[in-house]
Amino acid sequence: MDETSETRQAALAYVESLENRDWPRLTTLLADDVVYEMPQTRERIRGRPAFLRFNTDYPGDWHLRVRRLLADGRAAALWLDVVVGADALEACVWLDVDEHGLISRITDHWPEPYEPPPGREHLVERWSA
Amino acid sequence: MDETSETRQAALAYVESLENRDWPRLTTLLADDVVYEMPQTRERIRGRPAFLRFNTDYPGDWHLRVRRLLADGRAAALWLDVVVGADALEACVWLDVDEHGLISRITDHWPEPYEPPPGREHLVERWSA
Repeated sequence: MDETSETRQAALAYVESLENRDWPRLTTLLADDVVYEMPQTRERIRGRPAFLRFNTDYPGDWHLRVRRLLADGRAAALWLDVVVGADALEACVWLDVDEHGLISRITDHWPEPYEPPPGREHLVERWSA
Repeated sequence: MDETSETRQAALAYVESLENRDWPRLTTLLADDVVYEMPQTRERIRGRPAFLRFNTDYPGDWHLRVRRLLADGRAAALWLDVVVGADALEACVWLDVDEHGLISRITDHWPEPYEPPPGREHLVERWSA
């Protein structure tokens, strides 16, 4: 299996194990020194134990579905549909996989809905929430 | 050149032509019926003329720098550092390239900074803005 295929498989397994709360499987996918970052809040979590704890503790009934998965060498990008309780949002997740096929870096972007600025109504259509 | 390489080249040229305000070059990269979407505001722009107008009219002194570019077949994902005046933010851009190598679909996510929820301080470190 080439690098890109290995990365694609790791990225899919990452989402599946989170969605299934399969913490033993998630553990096997992660490098010991995995780094997780959330640029919007400038938060960083270092190491597999802390990252697992962050996920097992995460509040709410959240669910993940892959809308898009791109793999390119040792990097992957995921566009996820996320449902948390009654709220739906999209997430963009960037993964790096190390030479052992383990996920070594995870970056989550959580773009939240907002109202469009005025002045471009003549160019756009809007779809329903 | 294979599909993935063609897509990578189109994605890079897309960012370069936007950054350089090179509208003739940007025009050559886009399919006639390109669709541009901003899921956070649920806005959609259809067609090359409207999309060009959206960009030429976009207010502010904005600049784009590619932090990451992943290409995978006819799809690309870009993680951009965006500077608008004094503000810095990150964007996630998803591109589809058609069988002629032209960009047929563009989706922009604009994740904005926010304050982290309480309760996870023991797991995270924060970096400076």
